Amino acid sequence: MVFAYRGFVPKLWSETIKAHRREVQDTILETASALVAERGLLSVTMSQIAEKAGIGRATLYKYFPDVEAIVLAWHERQVARHLEHLVEVRDHASDAGRRLEAVLDAYAVIHQRRVHHHRHEPYGNELSTFVHRDEHVAHAEHQVHQLITELLVDAVDAGNVRDDVPAAELASYCLHALAAAGNLRSKVDVQRLVAVVLSGLRPVR
Amino acid sequence: MVFAYRGFVPKLWSETIKAHRREVQDTILETASALVAERGLLSVTMSQIAEKAGIGRATLYKYFPDVEAIVLAWHERQVARHLEHLVEVRDHASDAGRRLEAVLDAYAVIHQRRVHHHRHEPYGNELSTFVHRDEHVAHAEHQVHQLITELLVDAVDAGNVRDDVPAAELASYCLHALAAAGNLRSKVDVQRLVAVVLSGLRPVR
Repeated sequence: MVFAYRGFVPKLWSETIKAHRREVQDTILETASALVAERGLLSVTMSQIAEKAGIGRATLYKYFPDVEAIVLAWHERQVARHLEHLVEVRDHASDAGRRLEAVLDAYAVIHQRRVHHHRHEPYGNELSTFVHRDEHVAHAEHQVHQLITELLVDAVDAGNVRDDVPAAELASYCLHALAAAGNLRSKVDVQRLVAVVLSGLRPVR
Repeated sequence: MVFAYRGFVPKLWSETIKAHRREVQDTILETASALVAERGLLSVTMSQIAEKAGIGRATLYKYFPDVEAIVLAWHERQVARHLEHLVEVRDHASDAGRRLEAVLDAYAVIHQRRVHHHRHEPYGNELSTFVHRDEHVAHAEHQVHQLITELLVDAVDAGNVRDDVPAAELASYCLHALAAAGNLRSKVDVQRLVAVVLSGLRPVR
């Protein structure tokens, strides 16, 4: 019994520590990304982030070595969440055609929200250029491209998508075209854009 | 005769001066944009530009106050040239459908070349973010969007393009989707992309 008890408590304790660490980390990421978007990457200091996040500087340095590392971790988390969401959407749809449609729609909505979220932030663009130079982020974006390519291959097999253009090129077309959602205001506008993109994918008679 | 002679020479002279000034300015623009793409906006100095362009620093300052001004002037000239080229392409095509097709194709080719030109330059992205914050550049891009929108309106009237989506939204779709040309290698790949984008524009039955 004592043995089992000893095994049990440390596990709970470590879970609590883990949850606490994740909470602190999330606070740091949110605080830093908001500050950087508002003031620019070069103007934000570790002290400002610690103060705004309500933690000590020493604590902050236990989590991250510098502002750049925080911003990259934040963006990696964002892209990972988007990817998870797209996979979930894919797994809820019933056939190849609907899976493709649902995932493209979800991607456009993510893009619309992302741009709207940053539209009043003067340094949003600078931030975006910086993170896209990172190889982790490039890798995550490659995964999104891969996901869409696979959906397209299935949809070509099912006869829903044209077979005269390589699926990887069609995936690149989709991702670029759907980025136009950033200029759109309503869900209806986004759905119209998705419909246009899908028309471009239809088999040629 | 003396009068005509006096009127003639100064004109020639001023033309020579003008041509010389334009030549110097072009050299400055090319030199600066190459240096900035190679080393980053913050690392390039006016002295480096003067040296590489083969002119004195004092002369350089007669043309531009700082590196930022040179980079913006360079990009403005680029976008203006692209716009001129698109207008020329438009005016050479015979009907609404072909005009649209020719201009979209030319836009894709510009984009492909532009990205290829910058692909080995580590700071190409930073440069691009910087210039796109400028309102002159934003204005020039707005003009390209306007040009495509007008072509789309004509093509809708001619029955070549769908009428269930506002032309301005379709223009935005075209510009975003054609940016995918940046990943493509050959002219044939670009033509395939243009064909896909055009399929997205076709009237819905």
